[in-house]
Amino acid sequence: MDEFTIAGETLSSRLILGTGGAASLTALREAVEASGTSMVTVALRRLDPDAPGGLLEMLDGTGVRILPNTAGCYTATEAVKLAHLAREAFETHWVKLEVIGDDRTLLPDAVELVAAAARLVEDGFVVLPYTTDDPVLARRLVDVGCAAVMPAGAPIGSGAGIRNPYNLALIRELVSVPVILDAGIGTASDAALAMELGCDAVLLASAVTRAADPTRMAAAMRHAVLAGRLAAGAGRIPRRDYATASTSPEGLPSW
Amino acid sequence: MDEFTIAGETLSSRLILGTGGAASLTALREAVEASGTSMVTVALRRLDPDAPGGLLEMLDGTGVRILPNTAGCYTATEAVKLAHLAREAFETHWVKLEVIGDDRTLLPDAVELVAAAARLVEDGFVVLPYTTDDPVLARRLVDVGCAAVMPAGAPIGSGAGIRNPYNLALIRELVSVPVILDAGIGTASDAALAMELGCDAVLLASAVTRAADPTRMAAAMRHAVLAGRLAAGAGRIPRRDYATASTSPEGLPSW
Amino acid sequence: MDEFTIAGETLSSRLILGTGGAASLTALREAVEASGTSMVTVALRRLDPDAPGGLLEMLDGTGVRILPNTAGCYTATEAVKLAHLAREAFETHWVKLEVIGDDRTLLPDAVELVAAAARLVEDGFVVLPYTTDDPVLARRLVDVGCAAVMPAGAPIGSGAGIRNPYNLALIRELVSVPVILDAGIGTASDAALAMELGCDAVLLASAVTRAADPTRMAAAMRHAVLAGRLAAGAGRIPRRDYATASTSPEGLPSW
Amino acid sequence: MDEFTIAGETLSSRLILGTGGAASLTALREAVEASGTSMVTVALRRLDPDAPGGLLEMLDGTGVRILPNTAGCYTATEAVKLAHLAREAFETHWVKLEVIGDDRTLLPDAVELVAAAARLVEDGFVVLPYTTDDPVLARRLVDVGCAAVMPAGAPIGSGAGIRNPYNLALIRELVSVPVILDAGIGTASDAALAMELGCDAVLLASAVTRAADPTRMAAAMRHAVLAGRLAAGAGRIPRRDYATASTSPEGLPSW
Repeated sequence: MDEFTIAGETLSSRLILGTGGAASLTALREAVEASGTSMVTVALRRLDPDAPGGLLEMLDGTGVRILPNTAGCYTATEAVKLAHLAREAFETHWVKLEVIGDDRTLLPDAVELVAAAARLVEDGFVVLPYTTDDPVLARRLVDVGCAAVMPAGAPIGSGAGIRNPYNLALIRELVSVPVILDAGIGTASDAALAMELGCDAVLLASAVTRAADPTRMAAAMRHAVLAGRLAAGAGRIPRRDYATASTSPEGLPSW
Repeated sequence: MDEFTIAGETLSSRLILGTGGAASLTALREAVEASGTSMVTVALRRLDPDAPGGLLEMLDGTGVRILPNTAGCYTATEAVKLAHLAREAFETHWVKLEVIGDDRTLLPDAVELVAAAARLVEDGFVVLPYTTDDPVLARRLVDVGCAAVMPAGAPIGSGAGIRNPYNLALIRELVSVPVILDAGIGTASDAALAMELGCDAVLLASAVTRAADPTRMAAAMRHAVLAGRLAAGAGRIPRRDYATASTSPEGLPSW
Repeated sequence: MDEFTIAGETLSSRLILGTGGAASLTALREAVEASGTSMVTVALRRLDPDAPGGLLEMLDGTGVRILPNTAGCYTATEAVKLAHLAREAFETHWVKLEVIGDDRTLLPDAVELVAAAARLVEDGFVVLPYTTDDPVLARRLVDVGCAAVMPAGAPIGSGAGIRNPYNLALIRELVSVPVILDAGIGTASDAALAMELGCDAVLLASAVTRAADPTRMAAAMRHAVLAGRLAAGAGRIPRRDYATASTSPEGLPSW
Repeated sequence: MDEFTIAGETLSSRLILGTGGAASLTALREAVEASGTSMVTVALRRLDPDAPGGLLEMLDGTGVRILPNTAGCYTATEAVKLAHLAREAFETHWVKLEVIGDDRTLLPDAVELVAAAARLVEDGFVVLPYTTDDPVLARRLVDVGCAAVMPAGAPIGSGAGIRNPYNLALIRELVSVPVILDAGIGTASDAALAMELGCDAVLLASAVTRAADPTRMAAAMRHAVLAGRLAAGAGRIPRRDYATASTSPEGLPSW
């Protein structure tokens, strides 16, 4: 039930983990395992490929897929260049595309993002863009060939949750590729809500890596994503303003 | 980890299921099993103890504990009387105390509730009162000897979630007995949030019994309560207005 | 339009001002005038009736009505006693009844509040109780003869706004006496919202007296209460999930 | 106090009214007057300039400024063309730029919007673009020369209020041109909140024109914008989780 597919490849977990912010490789490894994730993101910027015993070696041991990102890029040109470097370094043509437009919010720049996405699709990449919660922008990204969209719930690392659930639901209606909530998650109920709103998966980093107990929070997120996914398919009761008695003195079977 | 204790007795699950609203005994049984619950509530009003093959016989088979409630009572006198009948019928001195004050919201009547709780404690009951989210009232109920408090998140059956999370958190601070969110839950993220706010357990009925797929929603709730419980103990990151980069080009280890 | 009636007496403004927290008598006087209020609350506890040039003398000059409150009381007995003292000191049988149940939230104690209200009504007072946002409790207070109910939007002085708008709307449905939002207001939009939810008036103190510019905030509140009152009677458009074009290329008149 | 300046011109009111959705010219005229607005938006698409006794003639009588919009355009090319037509028809080089990206939400298309804005600025227009609540996009629009930005609080005509107040506050921080909340307003408290978040003005149409009593709602909005503006400058008290007594038995002056 927890499987899903991006660009024809199946992932066994709907929770994707970012690796930034971890206190140590050991802490990260434990969190990765507790989360049950099958794909983690890695910033090329942060890696020294020559360093032995590093992140990549550790991840090799866990069997999870690596999704390189273009964190730290501010223009389409930079991001495209970094994506190509990542393709060589990680031997994958998948890329999480980030083109940041502002330092304080780390929100993406819509115009540069679309330009970079179009270019990378042409260059044969499977592009997963980190985007705003703008439904029209999400559809544009799909129109230029992105394999999924990754809207922000709130600024990266803010732990503020999903500030505009309506926009997420609108994105879900407007596009048919996977929608992956990326950024803003602070705790388990945020992740469950993302799934209930129709997201196919959740990507988070700080919520786990910077929690007081990353392993425990990783386990919480694993259950939360499962809970939200199950609930999304279970046909919830409607929200009402008044009560509906679950028990009534008359008219009910006496069992 | 999921165990908790009320009045010295240990329950193996932090999810308590109400039985009202189920379409059939079979549907209810499947939901009970999928939920992993170890205690269900039953309305004495609804039961014909002489009916064979009924609810009680079914529940006997699942091994869950039964918590009778006084649903349908509007005064302390009525509720106390019904609690005594329930003690005989179910051979338990535990009671979920409901004293309803209004038909449209099914919210409890604070004054009658405290009076009934005090009386039942004197009569030797373990009293779990269904109450509002008023922190001062919760403390009063504990002062008269209640073994737990069960504040409403929203009107019974409304599926509206937790309308005032602040009050729940205040109740958690003011009392040291178990706090069990009761009423209002609509979907999995609501249950996770209740646990994150510090509740010890969640009681729900309609959210599962009236969902399109009760068994699936019961499983969702099981994961949600686990997720929220784990998250509550994991030390979440603070909520911030701005971003915190999970990846930075300088100053980070190169692993 | 801004008039309303409590216990047969007409007030010319729907904004009631508390006097606690003011930096000086001059600041308070300016705020009272900018607010357009016609009634202020005063804590008997705070007053030295023998002090010349004090609060009462200042208020005399403004022509506003004084509503004494029982701030600082924790039991019905104390509150009843203080109300009687206030009746003598202020020569009014109106009283804002406060019976606090908890020091950190300053929320009222439901049981003591109902007891005190019943006693004071018997003693001939016009009782305006500060209460929680519990609709059933509000109706009980009206049942014992209160002339209005004053539910809290959030803890006194918290500036947190209206934490449970649904409960306020339910109170409005359940009682026919004036509903006056009391406590929690932080800024103008909170006051407007209270009126839109059906409140007849708004009582606030800290939001004005502790603002950086109390006079300006008092003027803001005057406009906000008017705005909310007008909007409440104007038949607002429904909330929708999707857009409704205000302009359409076809089908509209060409004016 | 209520004056503000766009592109060097002073407007005497911070409330801008859209004209779409009005039941009749008479109703619209009364609403315009009750609102105190000094600028209204008009869709060129909707107008037959040859029709006598129409909208323009009526508006002439009220002395309000007309801001033509490009409602109904889906590409930069269309919008630019319509803006030029509007410049001739209305003899103004001010234009409210709308480039819609989706029919159900009527949200703008970020990429086309920036392209159209840049073109119109080059052509000598004073451009006021209707945009999303994306702070980075807002700054881009200012970077290409827009005289103000008009972010949506929620979909046009939805009456859903301000779905992401954080983004509005971020826009306020990121740009120094006037920020005008445009779209989503349902009632008075929404308009007050927009101003409290730092907006310089509010643009609304349906909230007034489709209200049951448009004139009364127009008056409500006038007060709401004033209230929010005053409150924004008054230095509100902080939001707290707990109470702050406005009255304390000790330590306070005895006045």
